[in-house]
Amino acid sequence: MRDRYRTRLDGEPDVIAREEPVVFGTADSGPYTAEELGRLEQTGYLQVPDLVTPDEVETMSAELRRLSQDPEVLADERTVVESTSQEVRSIFEVHLSNPVFSAIAHDPRVVERARQVLGSDVYIHQSRVNFKPGFVGKEFSWHSDFETWHAEDGMPGPRAISISIALTDNYSYNGPLMIMPGSHQEFISCVGETPEDNFKESLVMQGAGTPDTKVLRDFADRYGIDVLTGQAGGATMFDSNCMHASNGNVTPYSRSNVFIVFNSVENACVEPFAAPQPRPHYLGARDHAPI
Amino acid sequence: MRDRYRTRLDGEPDVIAREEPVVFGTADSGPYTAEELGRLEQTGYLQVPDLVTPDEVETMSAELRRLSQDPEVLADERTVVESTSQEVRSIFEVHLSNPVFSAIAHDPRVVERARQVLGSDVYIHQSRVNFKPGFVGKEFSWHSDFETWHAEDGMPGPRAISISIALTDNYSYNGPLMIMPGSHQEFISCVGETPEDNFKESLVMQGAGTPDTKVLRDFADRYGIDVLTGQAGGATMFDSNCMHASNGNVTPYSRSNVFIVFNSVENACVEPFAAPQPRPHYLGARDHAPI
Repeated sequence: MRDRYRTRLDGEPDVIAREEPVVFGTADSGPYTAEELGRLEQTGYLQVPDLVTPDEVETMSAELRRLSQDPEVLADERTVVESTSQEVRSIFEVHLSNPVFSAIAHDPRVVERARQVLGSDVYIHQSRVNFKPGFVGKEFSWHSDFETWHAEDGMPGPRAISISIALTDNYSYNGPLMIMPGSHQEFISCVGETPEDNFKESLVMQGAGTPDTKVLRDFADRYGIDVLTGQAGGATMFDSNCMHASNGNVTPYSRSNVFIVFNSVENACVEPFAAPQPRPHYLGARDHAPI
Repeated sequence: MRDRYRTRLDGEPDVIAREEPVVFGTADSGPYTAEELGRLEQTGYLQVPDLVTPDEVETMSAELRRLSQDPEVLADERTVVESTSQEVRSIFEVHLSNPVFSAIAHDPRVVERARQVLGSDVYIHQSRVNFKPGFVGKEFSWHSDFETWHAEDGMPGPRAISISIALTDNYSYNGPLMIMPGSHQEFISCVGETPEDNFKESLVMQGAGTPDTKVLRDFADRYGIDVLTGQAGGATMFDSNCMHASNGNVTPYSRSNVFIVFNSVENACVEPFAAPQPRPHYLGARDHAPI
């Protein structure tokens, strides 16, 4: 398979224009209107207020609290803890391991949106619940998810979309998602080979797959930075190649969300494009059967 | 002297109502209107757009850039570097060491506002230039400056005011100042004795003088959090007892400002209220002669 998005090379960083569309479906084929699909194409993301009800938020929040204190979950390799505070930061593969989160990952409100955008059947490439604690929540540096999924999971093109469902209010000040709107149209090829078992480090602190700072500055100047605030129960859907990040959180207000990545079955992962071997299945599914 | 604001004790954290006014002067005695002084009394801060001109911003920014690369400045004990990136974070006592920053610290646009709010002659308790680099800028946890100045510098009451002049644009996303509006009316007594030479650690990472997290959560719920954005050249004046903080900065846009603290000559520092000895003069002036 031709590699349209070469990355993790030696030498200079490079910027590659996207070949694929962002939206593969039409307004007839799902919940989004033509106007919404147009905005997604242009900015790379869409916010959906009140995707789930307050009761559903409470059910999922209670489940996240319970999981964060379950010794079995804490010992599981699919759980990532903050390097300094030792609090739970993410729990992966919850669409398989947990009935509450499996339900939302297969809910028509979510799946039909993913199918519409990707214009095909879909499968879940990754799922997780994220918890950014108050006072000590750590930042995520700028990155494109697709860069990692392409390099380390073997995802051929950026025909995948993520949905983040907010379980807490996102204020401008508690470390919300930031996106450079429009950045999904360009792929930043990152410098440096992927080390063996890179994922063990990269989930806590970014190493390989880090975009060059000069390129990031140029992207920020050209695209700007949108801060995605919104109330609990709302969702953000964003393209796999959006350049995004979040600041740390010194406020008392923690942030948590459910995060599900849908990939088109026509874009199913092959061998990694720039890593010795694929990451574990809980980071990048190897089972590509449609939902 | 009676200690109205006991802190750094063993046992439980305590919240003490403020005794002093916030504004000691009147609309007749300086640049601020009665409406502005009323807002300062209520919220604990005031923003002044365009306090200095773009040319002045450029002069001060160039001077900060020059200082950040001057080996003599880097070696000076009054310079604080980021613990991880080794970039300059703050340079103290610039009102004495540097002609450019001395000029702004003595400028009538600044000093007359301080005199008006404090209702007396004033002297400079502390000055510094701060630089929060892009990508790796670190956070400042919640604190009241007065708590430190009282405990470690011997400032009797909260009759002091700070002015922060922005040398770069402050966006919601590059780690701007956050204030809990109204929090200046209550003093949080912090738990734990002050270690010897605490300042050497506390400028880089907070230890003694850290408010209790339950109290902070209660403050945030009652007072809310204001995010102080604004353009370069604008200034924020805020009461010495405001509960404030700032998040880190993963964006490409660095943040820098000039920070000057004025104290009333009627509130001149005495011996520390909760520390073995006063901090060095570049952190808390021991010369109280009025400007």
